[in-house]
Amino acid sequence: MANSRFAYVRKYELPDPLLPGVFLLLRIDGHSFHRFSDEHGFDKPNDVRALRLMDQAARQVMEEYPDIVLAFGESDEYSFLLRRQTTLYNRRQAKIVSTLTSYFTSSYVFNWSKYFPDTPLRYPPSFDGRIVVYPTEREVRDYFAWRQADTHINNLYNTVFWALIQKGGETATQAHATLRGTVSSQKHEILFGRFDINYNSIDERFKKGSILVREEVGNSKKEKEKARQTKIELVHCDIIKDTFWNARPALLS
Amino acid sequence: MANSRFAYVRKYELPDPLLPGVFLLLRIDGHSFHRFSDEHGFDKPNDVRALRLMDQAARQVMEEYPDIVLAFGESDEYSFLLRRQTTLYNRRQAKIVSTLTSYFTSSYVFNWSKYFPDTPLRYPPSFDGRIVVYPTEREVRDYFAWRQADTHINNLYNTVFWALIQKGGETATQAHATLRGTVSSQKHEILFGRFDINYNSIDERFKKGSILVREEVGNSKKEKEKARQTKIELVHCDIIKDTFWNARPALLS
Amino acid sequence: MANSRFAYVRKYELPDPLLPGVFLLLRIDGHSFHRFSDEHGFDKPNDVRALRLMDQAARQVMEEYPDIVLAFGESDEYSFLLRRQTTLYNRRQAKIVSTLTSYFTSSYVFNWSKYFPDTPLRYPPSFDGRIVVYPTEREVRDYFAWRQADTHINNLYNTVFWALIQKGGETATQAHATLRGTVSSQKHEILFGRFDINYNSIDERFKKGSILVREEVGNSKKEKEKARQTKIELVHCDIIKDTFWNARPALLS
Amino acid sequence: MANSRFAYVRKYELPDPLLPGVFLLLRIDGHSFHRFSDEHGFDKPNDVRALRLMDQAARQVMEEYPDIVLAFGESDEYSFLLRRQTTLYNRRQAKIVSTLTSYFTSSYVFNWSKYFPDTPLRYPPSFDGRIVVYPTEREVRDYFAWRQADTHINNLYNTVFWALIQKGGETATQAHATLRGTVSSQKHEILFGRFDINYNSIDERFKKGSILVREEVGNSKKEKEKARQTKIELVHCDIIKDTFWNARPALLS
Repeated sequence: MANSRFAYVRKYELPDPLLPGVFLLLRIDGHSFHRFSDEHGFDKPNDVRALRLMDQAARQVMEEYPDIVLAFGESDEYSFLLRRQTTLYNRRQAKIVSTLTSYFTSSYVFNWSKYFPDTPLRYPPSFDGRIVVYPTEREVRDYFAWRQADTHINNLYNTVFWALIQKGGETATQAHATLRGTVSSQKHEILFGRFDINYNSIDERFKKGSILVREEVGNSKKEKEKARQTKIELVHCDIIKDTFWNARPALLS
Repeated sequence: MANSRFAYVRKYELPDPLLPGVFLLLRIDGHSFHRFSDEHGFDKPNDVRALRLMDQAARQVMEEYPDIVLAFGESDEYSFLLRRQTTLYNRRQAKIVSTLTSYFTSSYVFNWSKYFPDTPLRYPPSFDGRIVVYPTEREVRDYFAWRQADTHINNLYNTVFWALIQKGGETATQAHATLRGTVSSQKHEILFGRFDINYNSIDERFKKGSILVREEVGNSKKEKEKARQTKIELVHCDIIKDTFWNARPALLS
Repeated sequence: MANSRFAYVRKYELPDPLLPGVFLLLRIDGHSFHRFSDEHGFDKPNDVRALRLMDQAARQVMEEYPDIVLAFGESDEYSFLLRRQTTLYNRRQAKIVSTLTSYFTSSYVFNWSKYFPDTPLRYPPSFDGRIVVYPTEREVRDYFAWRQADTHINNLYNTVFWALIQKGGETATQAHATLRGTVSSQKHEILFGRFDINYNSIDERFKKGSILVREEVGNSKKEKEKARQTKIELVHCDIIKDTFWNARPALLS
Repeated sequence: MANSRFAYVRKYELPDPLLPGVFLLLRIDGHSFHRFSDEHGFDKPNDVRALRLMDQAARQVMEEYPDIVLAFGESDEYSFLLRRQTTLYNRRQAKIVSTLTSYFTSSYVFNWSKYFPDTPLRYPPSFDGRIVVYPTEREVRDYFAWRQADTHINNLYNTVFWALIQKGGETATQAHATLRGTVSSQKHEILFGRFDINYNSIDERFKKGSILVREEVGNSKKEKEKARQTKIELVHCDIIKDTFWNARPALLS
């Protein structure tokens, strides 16, 4: 067959298995989303439609891949935790990162019009993905704490920044200058003193990010039925302290 | 800052640079497209709407990434050649494979309704991607020859198979049995003898697949302007023999 | 400088860092040691001179590399455990595996004449090395258990096999046939019944392998002095059960 | 069997195949050879005994591994070229780098007393190894040019440096200061003007390094016999220009 003479090129496809017995963490990030959010008129500092669309895309990924037990989203990024013993695609790195990033992207575009009924999608957005492996519960906990702390820091900054612009009449340059060197308590003070905004009363979604967690329901003992007996819950709660994790020991088992 | 205590988790992100000075070949494949084509009523053996949508998604990828000089598509797969010296994303493997696969997927969904105006998209399709590196022109030529030979073999088989079903009234099982062990000339004979179909007169698109090639236009000598002075042409011609390549020496330079 | 025109070739040296925060396990194996042991008249089933030379080479490796906390040797192989947080050679894989295997080999040849004073080395022996990473204490414990169980199984087989030949007058083929399908208790019975050998009284070195363990001595609290305040002990004891490990919690910390 | 319960740890041994169809370049470097040469009283700037011992160790590696077609040595380093199509150890990276570095080291120690009959080896030396892959003839040529240019530059510097110390009575600090900023012609002038040394008359070995090249002998056409019909020649000639390579087209085939 004509094909066989060329088929040797397959030998250049090298194996890329991820280490067994470690947690897989996939992080997906929007590509050039600064421009994308401008072109589509995203609200500042947070666009709740865009965040809900991200949550929906992430939820579909979790529904399709039962080995994802937890996800965390903020802004234009989402992180997915695959359980330690997953054998998804035989743990082939490129297969996992490309397929899941593709499916997330697809769900984002597919659902766009539901979340932005009045804003046609002007061009196809894209996302990049990367997989990081973590050996123990400690690093996984700290990874999610890192992202949630990042959410908090960014949101506080952005909230004050956009208040200075939208309500204080400052330019972006002025607003950055106003904020330079300020610590957290000073930012709270600016918000409250100048704009009568109590940061603590701001929507938890913006301060904590989105947590999608696979919760077990029912009490079947048959292993096979377990996948069907979970549901994916969206919450906006603290995942830095122990409470969240202690209530869900299966996440890191 | 609360963040810094957790930021050590970034150290687990290991570098994944691809070898310099070699050709990068990205192949994107539809994920579960057998089901996807059934659910969306694709014509058999080839759905020209679906193939044109694949071509359009591939074209957008090439427009976005000037370092892609050639692409080849058949069925639900597309292969992209990045020039040997590309420094795209510093040649980071996961970044390239995830971003380009994501953008292809996004373009596919984004353009769906233009190619399938009467067929709503029922769920988000996804694709996987992989990158293979090839050291010399020889392997690159043979890679594309491998895909085009595959196109030819599959298309001939599928053309007879579906003729047996659609015109010959056979079941799928019977059609496979009829074809078992037949060589190329026998398949031609079945087509011509029983269904009056001359395989040679079938659309080149189906027999040769789709070639998207970046052609240089204009004659500027300024290197910087070159990217803007190319256009992407879609052709359905032989890429196994020398003619195509000899006419475009820049592809493998 | 003439050099700079060619120095680009360094770009082809890609990074190969091992994952942080996991245990590194280096296993060194003799290359073609079946032939090597024949050529140098090693005693069968065990040559105590050869085993002591292996122990000596391993000890020198541990003396040179303080981050190795434990080693296990049997026959012509030795395994070394580097502590989880080691930053040896920035955890570069090829650097670690080549340098440590080289130093082991060098020590083996260097010390040959002390252990084989009457047997000149006829040609240079070589060893291969590989690094495996293990995420948690569990896998490290099981790795060493795997090697020690292997030692036990091989030694029991070899002890009976060579008794059948040396004392029973069987050929190698006959001895293998005699042993085919026998379980552990039957091998004990052959040894005791036919050759009056009580397997339990055989040297622990042969049954358990060699364990080189870095023990802390003194009680300085200064971290810097700790490396100098360890000594390397050779023991031949069980490392499958908990006792060994419970007595040395620092090994897996 | 007790073993099987633990044998899962083998799953952590991941594949590490090197890309097919590319040249493999192994470079071996002495580890802490500044100290090693001091402890063993190496002549400065070059110790011909030490260089010959390096050549001998490299020769034994080439005799053992027929797929090595060329080697280049200078000071305490040696580079080995494996032919493009080699399937040595299935191109497993750690296996190749560890075994060949081990065998080089072993040969070095094994042969020490022949080259240093009056200087007992005081401790075991070690070497590190790394493999770099090069896709085409161009990079291989440039790699060897890079090493030979390096030899030239280092040797000229060291020759003047040690003349200033040994014949000019300068300290090392003074000699470095004398040489700071000098170009090649000025170094020649110092050598000739102050010490009556014509650099061009210095031993080619020191200026060009050592080239070990596998030359084909006889004229058998049977592929199998070819390995036995080569011999390894040591030369000290230019390998930057074309002459050497044009005379030996098989090296890069």
